[in-house]
Amino acid sequence: MSPPPIALLTDYGHKDAYAGVLRAVIFGICPDARFLDLSHEVPPQNIMTGAHLIASAAPYLPRGSIVLAVVDPGVGGGRRALCIKTERLLLVGPDNGLFSLLLRSDSAEKAVELDQSRFHLPSVSATFHGRDIFAPVAAHLANDIPFNSIGTPVVLESLVQIPLPEPVMSPDRIECHVMHVDGFGNLITDLEEPDMQDWRRDASLRVRIGHTEVPLRRTYSAVGEGELLAYFGSTGRLEIAVRNGNAARRLEMGQGTVVEVARDERAA
Amino acid sequence: MSPPPIALLTDYGHKDAYAGVLRAVIFGICPDARFLDLSHEVPPQNIMTGAHLIASAAPYLPRGSIVLAVVDPGVGGGRRALCIKTERLLLVGPDNGLFSLLLRSDSAEKAVELDQSRFHLPSVSATFHGRDIFAPVAAHLANDIPFNSIGTPVVLESLVQIPLPEPVMSPDRIECHVMHVDGFGNLITDLEEPDMQDWRRDASLRVRIGHTEVPLRRTYSAVGEGELLAYFGSTGRLEIAVRNGNAARRLEMGQGTVVEVARDERAA
Amino acid sequence: MSPPPIALLTDYGHKDAYAGVLRAVIFGICPDARFLDLSHEVPPQNIMTGAHLIASAAPYLPRGSIVLAVVDPGVGGGRRALCIKTERLLLVGPDNGLFSLLLRSDSAEKAVELDQSRFHLPSVSATFHGRDIFAPVAAHLANDIPFNSIGTPVVLESLVQIPLPEPVMSPDRIECHVMHVDGFGNLITDLEEPDMQDWRRDASLRVRIGHTEVPLRRTYSAVGEGELLAYFGSTGRLEIAVRNGNAARRLEMGQGTVVEVARDERAA
Repeated sequence: MSPPPIALLTDYGHKDAYAGVLRAVIFGICPDARFLDLSHEVPPQNIMTGAHLIASAAPYLPRGSIVLAVVDPGVGGGRRALCIKTERLLLVGPDNGLFSLLLRSDSAEKAVELDQSRFHLPSVSATFHGRDIFAPVAAHLANDIPFNSIGTPVVLESLVQIPLPEPVMSPDRIECHVMHVDGFGNLITDLEEPDMQDWRRDASLRVRIGHTEVPLRRTYSAVGEGELLAYFGSTGRLEIAVRNGNAARRLEMGQGTVVEVARDERAA
Repeated sequence: MSPPPIALLTDYGHKDAYAGVLRAVIFGICPDARFLDLSHEVPPQNIMTGAHLIASAAPYLPRGSIVLAVVDPGVGGGRRALCIKTERLLLVGPDNGLFSLLLRSDSAEKAVELDQSRFHLPSVSATFHGRDIFAPVAAHLANDIPFNSIGTPVVLESLVQIPLPEPVMSPDRIECHVMHVDGFGNLITDLEEPDMQDWRRDASLRVRIGHTEVPLRRTYSAVGEGELLAYFGSTGRLEIAVRNGNAARRLEMGQGTVVEVARDERAA
Repeated sequence: MSPPPIALLTDYGHKDAYAGVLRAVIFGICPDARFLDLSHEVPPQNIMTGAHLIASAAPYLPRGSIVLAVVDPGVGGGRRALCIKTERLLLVGPDNGLFSLLLRSDSAEKAVELDQSRFHLPSVSATFHGRDIFAPVAAHLANDIPFNSIGTPVVLESLVQIPLPEPVMSPDRIECHVMHVDGFGNLITDLEEPDMQDWRRDASLRVRIGHTEVPLRRTYSAVGEGELLAYFGSTGRLEIAVRNGNAARRLEMGQGTVVEVARDERAA
C-alpha cells in the first residue's frame, strides 16, 4: 500500500534547492513517498499567510495525509518542534501558530515535541530544521512509525496560537478583514459564509472596502469585464475581486484591510 | 500497472495552494496518480499562452496521458466543462479554446460535457471548477473509468476555438507573428519549419522584426555573445533570440509582434 | 523496486513547460520515475549558481540518485554532453563546469560522452538538449541501463571546470566571497567551517562585508529582529543575514562581494 501523501508548505521559494532537499531527505527514508506542494512562496516568515493556505487546502487532503510546513522565523531559538495529530491529519512543523487556523476546524487530538533524535538527521544545523528535523520525521511517519515514538507529549493548551483577526458582527453590520491576497489579486477575508446564516441575502446588502462599494454576486460572470465584485469564494470566505483583473492592484489594498458588510440604509 | 500521467497546466501561480489542492483531490481518488506540471504561471486568463504551452508539450507526453488544464476566465458562467479524447491523449478543462491549438495536430475524436455529478466533488463552487470538477474527473479517468460514462457527448464542431493568428504566405515574403515570449525572452512565432519547405534556405533570406534585421542560423553559438539571431527552435517554430541574452527586453517586443521573412532584394 | 530518484536542476523557469517536458520524456521511458526538483530558477545561463545549488543539495540525495542538470549556454555548439559517475551519484548534463563544485567533495570515478543516439529522442534539436538528450539518458539510467553503454569514456582530466573563487587564508585574516544569494536574501560565501578549524572562535573575531561589521553568531535568534549577523549556515558555509529580513537588499550586495574574517586588532 502506498504511504500517505506528504503535503509541503514553506517560505523557501523556488530560486534555491531548499524544498528539493526536503524531498531528497524524505526519499532517503521513505522511497515511495508521494508529494504534493501546497506552496513554497509563502512570503518569508509570514506565518499568517502560511496558516491561511494550510487551512484552506487541508479539507481536500486525503485522510491520513502528513502536512510538513516550515515557516520558521524562530528556528534555532527556543521554539518547539512539533507533530500534532488531528482526526484527519498529521501536522509536522514549528510551534509558532502556523497550524492554529486549521486547528479551529480540525481539532488537535494529541501533540508531541520532536525530541527523539534517532528520527532526525545525524547532524542538526541551527538554521535548517526543515531538512534536519521536520522532513525526516515526516518521512518516518509516512513509513508508519507510531506517533507516540517520535516525541514527548505536550499539553494541547500550550500550543502557540497566532492572533487572528475575527469578524466583528453586529445586527446590521459586519466588519471583516483581508487575510490573504491570492495570485490573481483577489482579496480573501476572514468572513465565512455560515457566519451570515441569519442575514437575508438581498439587494439591500452592500459590501464596502475603503470608500468603494462593491456588489455581492455569486461569481465573476455576474458583473462586466473589469468590474469589482464581492462573492463567497472557493474556501467559503468572502472575497473581493475584479472580473478578469487584479483587485489588490486596482484598490491598492492588502492583508489587514477592513471590509464592511451592511444593510443599505437607503433600502431600510 | 501505473495509471497514466496527469499533466497539469493552470494560471494559478505558486503563491497559493490552488495547484496543490488539485493534487490533493486527485490523490484522494487515485492514490497512485503520477503528475507532471507543465506550468502554473500562465498569465492570468491568458488562453493563448496556455494553448501554446499545451500544444508544444503534448507531443512529448506518453500516449494515454491526461492533460488537466485550467485557464478559465468564464468559470461559473455558461461555458461548458469538457473532456476531449484525441488519438493520443485525454484533455480535461473548460470549453474556451485552450486545447484548440493542440487539436490542429492531434485531432479530437470524441468530446463529452462533464455533467455527471457523481464524478465531481460533492459540493461544487462557482469559482474553482479546477478543484471541484476537472481534478476529480481527471482522477477518475486515471482510474480507468470509461470515457463515455463521465459526460454527455457533444458535437465536435461545437468546440470553442480561439482566433489564432496564422502566417501570411506569399511567394517572396512571409508575415508571421510572435505567439509566446518564453522565460529566456525568446520570441516564438507561429511560423513552422514545414511551412517553408519550398523556400531555399540561403544567404538571400532575411528575417526582420520591427526595423531590426536578424540573421537566420541553426543555433545560438552561430552568432556572437549578445547578438540577435533567428532560428527554428525546439518546437519547430521560428524564434528570435539573443545569444545568452533576452530578446524581448532588448527589442521591447512581445506577443503579437509581426516578424517578416523575405528574400533579400539586393541578392535577387 | 523503485527506480532511483531523478533530481532536476535547470534555468528553464516556471513560465514555460520546458521542465514539464523533461518529465514527460522521462515518464515515456521510465513510467515509475520518481522526481525531485532542486530548482528551475537558476538565473539564465548562470553556471556558478547552478553549481552551488547542486553541491549544496547533493549530500542529501539518496545514494544512486540521478542528477539531471541543464544550465547550458553552449547548447548546439561544440560542448560535450556527459554522464559522470561518482561514488554516490550519476550526473547528467553539459560539460561546462556545472558539476565541478560538487566533484570537489564527491569525486568523479568515470565519465562518458553521450554519443549513443539510441538513448536519445529520435530527432535531436539544436537548442533543447535537455529534452532530446539529457532527459532520455537519465530515464534509461533510471531503468538501470549499464553506465558503459550510454556513451564513450572520456578522460576525467578533460572535464570542464568553472573558475571558482576560493577563500584566501592568512594567519590573522581570511578573505572569502559571496557565491550565492538565496531567496531570503542571505549571502552565502565560499568559506567552509572546517577551513577555520585552527581559529579560535572568540569575541576577538569579527566579520566585515564592505564597511559593515557583523557579529558572528550561532543562529538568527542570537541577534535582535532586523539585525545583521554572520553564522555558519546549513551548508556549512559562512553566511551573512538579517534576522527576519533581507541582507542582500539591506547591504545592496550580491554574488562576488568580498567578506573579510579577522581577529579584531583592538582585542589583540
